Amino acid sequence: MYRSNTCGELRLSDRGKKVTLAGWVQRIRKMGSLNFIDLRDRYGITQLSADDNSPKEVLDIIANLGREYVIQVEGEVIERQSKNNKIPTGEIEIKLESINILNPAAIPPFTIEDQTDGGEDIRAKYRYLDLRRNPLKSALSLRHKIALETRKYLDEQSFMEIETPFLIKSTPEGARDFVVPSRMNPGEFYALPQSPQTFKQLLMVAGYDRYFQIVRCFRDEDLRADRQPEFTQIDCEMSFVEREDVLQMFEGLTKHLFKSVLNKEITEAFPRMSYDYAMEHYGSDKPDIRFEMQIQDISELVKGKGFSIFDQANYIGAISATGCAGYTRKQIDELTEWVKRPQIGAKGLVYIKLGDEIKSSVDKFYTPEDLQKIGNKLNAQKGDLILILCGEKKKTQTQLGALRLEMGNRLGLRDNSVYKPLWICDFPLLEWDDETQRFYAMHHPFTAPKPEDLDKFFSNNQSDLAEVKANAYDIVLNGNEIGGGSIRIHDNKIQKRMFEILGFSSEQAEYRFGFLMNAFKFGAPPHGGIAFGFDRLCALFGGQETIRDFIAFPKNNMGRDVMADSPSVIDDTQMEELFIKSTASKE
Amino acid sequence: MYRSNTCGELRLSDRGKKVTLAGWVQRIRKMGSLNFIDLRDRYGITQLSADDNSPKEVLDIIANLGREYVIQVEGEVIERQSKNNKIPTGEIEIKLESINILNPAAIPPFTIEDQTDGGEDIRAKYRYLDLRRNPLKSALSLRHKIALETRKYLDEQSFMEIETPFLIKSTPEGARDFVVPSRMNPGEFYALPQSPQTFKQLLMVAGYDRYFQIVRCFRDEDLRADRQPEFTQIDCEMSFVEREDVLQMFEGLTKHLFKSVLNKEITEAFPRMSYDYAMEHYGSDKPDIRFEMQIQDISELVKGKGFSIFDQANYIGAISATGCAGYTRKQIDELTEWVKRPQIGAKGLVYIKLGDEIKSSVDKFYTPEDLQKIGNKLNAQKGDLILILCGEKKKTQTQLGALRLEMGNRLGLRDNSVYKPLWICDFPLLEWDDETQRFYAMHHPFTAPKPEDLDKFFSNNQSDLAEVKANAYDIVLNGNEIGGGSIRIHDNKIQKRMFEILGFSSEQAEYRFGFLMNAFKFGAPPHGGIAFGFDRLCALFGGQETIRDFIAFPKNNMGRDVMADSPSVIDDTQMEELFIKSTASKE
Repeated sequence: MYRSNTCGELRLSDRGKKVTLAGWVQRIRKMGSLNFIDLRDRYGITQLSADDNSPKEVLDIIANLGREYVIQVEGEVIERQSKNNKIPTGEIEIKLESINILNPAAIPPFTIEDQTDGGEDIRAKYRYLDLRRNPLKSALSLRHKIALETRKYLDEQSFMEIETPFLIKSTPEGARDFVVPSRMNPGEFYALPQSPQTFKQLLMVAGYDRYFQIVRCFRDEDLRADRQPEFTQIDCEMSFVEREDVLQMFEGLTKHLFKSVLNKEITEAFPRMSYDYAMEHYGSDKPDIRFEMQIQDISELVKGKGFSIFDQANYIGAISATGCAGYTRKQIDELTEWVKRPQIGAKGLVYIKLGDEIKSSVDKFYTPEDLQKIGNKLNAQKGDLILILCGEKKKTQTQLGALRLEMGNRLGLRDNSVYKPLWICDFPLLEWDDETQRFYAMHHPFTAPKPEDLDKFFSNNQSDLAEVKANAYDIVLNGNEIGGGSIRIHDNKIQKRMFEILGFSSEQAEYRFGFLMNAFKFGAPPHGGIAFGFDRLCALFGGQETIRDFIAFPKNNMGRDVMADSPSVIDDTQMEELFIKSTASKE
Repeated sequence: MYRSNTCGELRLSDRGKKVTLAGWVQRIRKMGSLNFIDLRDRYGITQLSADDNSPKEVLDIIANLGREYVIQVEGEVIERQSKNNKIPTGEIEIKLESINILNPAAIPPFTIEDQTDGGEDIRAKYRYLDLRRNPLKSALSLRHKIALETRKYLDEQSFMEIETPFLIKSTPEGARDFVVPSRMNPGEFYALPQSPQTFKQLLMVAGYDRYFQIVRCFRDEDLRADRQPEFTQIDCEMSFVEREDVLQMFEGLTKHLFKSVLNKEITEAFPRMSYDYAMEHYGSDKPDIRFEMQIQDISELVKGKGFSIFDQANYIGAISATGCAGYTRKQIDELTEWVKRPQIGAKGLVYIKLGDEIKSSVDKFYTPEDLQKIGNKLNAQKGDLILILCGEKKKTQTQLGALRLEMGNRLGLRDNSVYKPLWICDFPLLEWDDETQRFYAMHHPFTAPKPEDLDKFFSNNQSDLAEVKANAYDIVLNGNEIGGGSIRIHDNKIQKRMFEILGFSSEQAEYRFGFLMNAFKFGAPPHGGIAFGFDRLCALFGGQETIRDFIAFPKNNMGRDVMADSPSVIDDTQMEELFIKSTASKE
């Protein structure tokens, strides 16, 4: 071993000990004849010191040291003259007796500090240097801890972690598969799993009634911001359960993680909200309930007063921003521009200021009493600002939802150290797509309809089908979906009907999911499960919005690893062996 | 929840309780008016009973039940008339009050019993039914436990589990890569990792000094028996360590697994053996040391006595099989045929029986005293049988190694409940390949030469290079390599020399491993690691020779999942999007 101690563990109580440390040179300071070196490793920083009385070899080496050199040192633990109470080792330093350069280092292209001077691109290219910085070290350490605590908890609940294959069958429904040509089976391809969905259902058929896996999944999608082509899931499934059992179990897991990882005790049950309520009052199926500011439908209060825009609108909704009645013209204009940006897409913004007087952009059409009634509906107080949007219902609710989050940000109501989890339930089972003139599964084709909606599910009436609710649920944290799942179909008749509704011919269904449907003939238990987005969960636990720092080696928006410069071209012979040819034009 | 208890937990102390169970019908027995059903779930089997006094609905349903039906039952826990002491629930049964069929089942194509009547192919096709059998359930349960205990142990030793990417750069050296065409980067491909080797070394450069991961790896090899295209590794790496530190740490892990999983306490240190010694005396770099029967070179004792085959042989080696002097002519002939099979490839077999008299197949050339000297060299006793092979040294040693294992089997010396781990060290760094006239890395190109061999490593003399030992080690259990690793090269000069020896141009080295070599310029610590073959480890802990039952969904020798019928053809449009074309001829 190159060291007797790490750079994070020595304290005043170790005074007088001879120690050997190894690590990276974080910083070198000269103060007259005094030399100080901050030596860094994964565990912390320890100060090394040398002065005129130090061995000449030590001073010679120090004179030639550079940042990020890897060194091994020996010396005595002594008390510091000027203590640093910001770090745990701040009361001691090592009086150097010898230094050994284990490896020199070129000058790093950016500073290895909590706040670095490196831009995103250069840090991505030198990811191994970026990973030396504390914020990334904490992020990966947190991720390790969440994974371990998840495993411990689920093991205690009799879950078995079972590994499912990565080279599976391509069943294109939903996102695009990544595929892998098979050398031994010419012309045939494996797919990489978008999730272990079918395998975990087969495990339920096989009787493994509590399964989980922390597992990589793959989706060949155009990458929106903060999406990765490969991502990690906590994937879980249980047999002989109803919705309530699944919710209880994974509410338990979530609470355990809050307690064991963040030391936050959540004693009360997570709120539950229907999808319809969430859309109606938060304009989102993943409401951030760290703050109220609910959306209200005010159509009844504003129609028929001569304001033609409202009179013609399909829906008029509003939120009330606490204490914002004092917003200036300029601030209102800015908000108006904000809602009109293409990302939001509203046509305009109507406001009501509940100041000493009530003022609004539609004073011409409404009396102060009319406006006060709107305020009352919103539970608004004097001093609040009411913001109103109108248009097609779902679209306008979504716009109000975005505006609500924006006002939450402006008012500092979205504190990342506050955690407000909730369950969203009763999603629609099916979504109609006008373009392809067919239904798509909102969740996936194995999600069970709610038992009370089975009649509608077997109806041939499109509007009946649109009303069928799924026995599905999402777990939402601070405006982010962190997990989702459902009770699955275990009845072959219902599964067949589902494929029929989704427009699969029985041949297609047989080709794609035949082995699953076949398995269901041999005694499938009632079952259901959930999958957590592990990258997102880690980021939220770390108080961050983006997942990239919580993945050791992420890819960029083009799916590239800029560090390794991958993907890359491969040899023609390699392709020949795989019975494929590239059709990309070579430059 | 569909049940109040599992089928494995009720005992006599639960007598009188009303319970609800759910599970699969294992067996139905009618004895006069008595009906018995064995109900099975993951946790065990509980007997259900009904008689003339049971509700009519219950009796009606029982009359129509079949094997593997999924049912939910209610009833009272009562004491059994005739107890079954082979199962933990054998003292009680459930007096049925109601039965609810949750799902019927088609007749399974083979019996779901410990000893099934199903052949391998049919069981592979219906893997989800095979997985219901106890041997597979125990295998996967063991695997879960080994994984969890590995994680707990390594976490306690400050290791962090860090996930590395699956979509990586293709760096063809060693086995073939599986590749994944990139849609967003036309003409370019990702590779699936053969191991996270480069990433774990980058993590060491990044300062994560104790890394591990239980991770899937991929190799597109022609599948020898008991190899899988995707397999799992316990992958580990440490910084600031020497060989001794790595061996101590993972000897500790192995002992922890023996204790926590198998309740076997191993207190003594694992033996260590050099590669040369293992080849010389066991004819294998993974010796089974559950039994002695070491190979000895007897050339000196047998040459020059007029037996021309031995006189002309490059090497003559022997083993002594305890108590086999009584082998008949027929048995000796059979052994002779066995060593002459193409898999072994020996030309013939010479024997010496140390019976009341000493008899051999070469009595013509050797006196009993000559033969006794051979016996003495082998430490053979009266009653033993000496078996001799000769030929080219390495080949003959390997043949003797195989013969040794065969005799071990015949003598019952290879008990799967006995565990004898050991370390093999001091492997050659390089292997010369006559065909391509170049050296290959025996381990991989990042393995460090032993410090004392550095002069030879920088020599241009081929015979010097062939003598360089690697700072590498394997951990071997009962004749199987369960893990291997090495101290890595952390010095850029040594790494460059390595690539040079392997015949990479600097452009090739740069293209393939540039990012790693570049990383090494910024302060690489001394580091080393190990990877355990997790599938094999699990199989050995389960006392089995084949890994297939320890993988939930394995592939066959053609890399096919016969259950899902994968790999499979994909749509032309899917290929177009990926900028590839299949060149396989369509039938």
